[in-house]
Amino acid sequence: MTTASGSDDIHSVATLQIGADGSASERREEVVVEAPFAIELHGEVLATTMRTPGHDDELQAGFLLAEGHDPAGFATTRVVKRGTLSSAACGVCGRDDIEDLLARLTPVAAETRFTPGVVSRAMQRLPEHQPIFSRTGGLHAAALFTHDGSLLVAREDIGRHNAVDKVLGRAALDRRLPLSEHLLAVSGRTSFEIVQKAVMAGVPALAAISAPSSLAIELAERFRVLLIGFARGGGFAVYAGRFRLEGAG
Amino acid sequence: MTTASGSDDIHSVATLQIGADGSASERREEVVVEAPFAIELHGEVLATTMRTPGHDDELQAGFLLAEGHDPAGFATTRVVKRGTLSSAACGVCGRDDIEDLLARLTPVAAETRFTPGVVSRAMQRLPEHQPIFSRTGGLHAAALFTHDGSLLVAREDIGRHNAVDKVLGRAALDRRLPLSEHLLAVSGRTSFEIVQKAVMAGVPALAAISAPSSLAIELAERFRVLLIGFARGGGFAVYAGRFRLEGAG
Repeated sequence: MTTASGSDDIHSVATLQIGADGSASERREEVVVEAPFAIELHGEVLATTMRTPGHDDELQAGFLLAEGHDPAGFATTRVVKRGTLSSAACGVCGRDDIEDLLARLTPVAAETRFTPGVVSRAMQRLPEHQPIFSRTGGLHAAALFTHDGSLLVAREDIGRHNAVDKVLGRAALDRRLPLSEHLLAVSGRTSFEIVQKAVMAGVPALAAISAPSSLAIELAERFRVLLIGFARGGGFAVYAGRFRLEGAG
Repeated sequence: MTTASGSDDIHSVATLQIGADGSASERREEVVVEAPFAIELHGEVLATTMRTPGHDDELQAGFLLAEGHDPAGFATTRVVKRGTLSSAACGVCGRDDIEDLLARLTPVAAETRFTPGVVSRAMQRLPEHQPIFSRTGGLHAAALFTHDGSLLVAREDIGRHNAVDKVLGRAALDRRLPLSEHLLAVSGRTSFEIVQKAVMAGVPALAAISAPSSLAIELAERFRVLLIGFARGGGFAVYAGRFRLEGAG
């Protein structure tokens, strides 16, 4: 087995480095920790997910939020007896139908708009909040920014959806929902499920470093979320909800 | 809703491009399609996963393979009545315990070794097999290479695990299992589950463009898989199973 050392979220391991010229050398590298975590509700395991240890209360709260439970009180607001397990990596698993999931969603009511400058500056600051990624290259990040571009919370996790769950879970635990004046930033791509989680938390704006999927765009448009992709070098592309971007009507 | 056009796996959508200088312009962009797919066994839905349409028979076969079924005949080789659903994005969901999953795995028996040159050249060719990624920036890729570095099959999907399922599923449908002389290449990071899928297919070598997780390394070491990360520019790092690398003993 790997000889590992380090903190809860980073281990140091021995590696053999092969150069492009075929040279070989020993080097220790830091890798991100992946470990299973059981998400429970009322003492029952709802799902087991692979995650980076740390902030597990937030992960649990964010997961429950996306599943339609009250994450702050851990009281079930809507008893959905599914008899199935879900994953933090896939909120659609265990459902017969996407419409069942969509039926829980309501469009983001707030009329909040954002200036291009706030979005641009927030996204340029995202790498500052990825300390583990910068050491291991193995993590996704999510962050919540306020309407004026101040950072509220940032989290990293080996799972894209876990990072989002932790950030939204933190906000839920702090009883800040709905996040009607906030921007959710993610380091990678945007899929259906990331938008779904944002909508459940009432977030009006979602920005990503990389590309959105077709379904992410459709969902964002339908539920009134400003969806931004390819936020790099100060510029970005608006895929949905452009009425929320000041000056872009 | 989005005005979309294009093929099954790529849609063209209208976007607003904001430059770093605040300039705004309209542009159509191609995005990767994300859509739900129900994986069935004997007429029963085992899981619903979000995937990029196309090669769905392979996705189904690869998923079933990783779950311990016979993917070629769609006959159940081991009847596991779990009463739960899983996801292609998370093979560990719906399990109480990772040990339950590990109990199904046997170490890769083949003694196959690989030369650094074959690994290096295979990984440098991976981008050639990512036509959708190059157009949309929104996809993961997986590919199987033979022992001499020839490409057997390459697939892209919005889900990392789906791309792996499709590639291994193709091999299963072609009755090529176990893949005892093959290298599985993936575009992103390596997690526990990617290694688990490789082991289920008998693959002795797994190489990735990005970083492995702690658990991926442990699993690879335990089940005799050569695990390579950061395969970039001709060089790479060996994290586990280095006895399989010729000249590195």
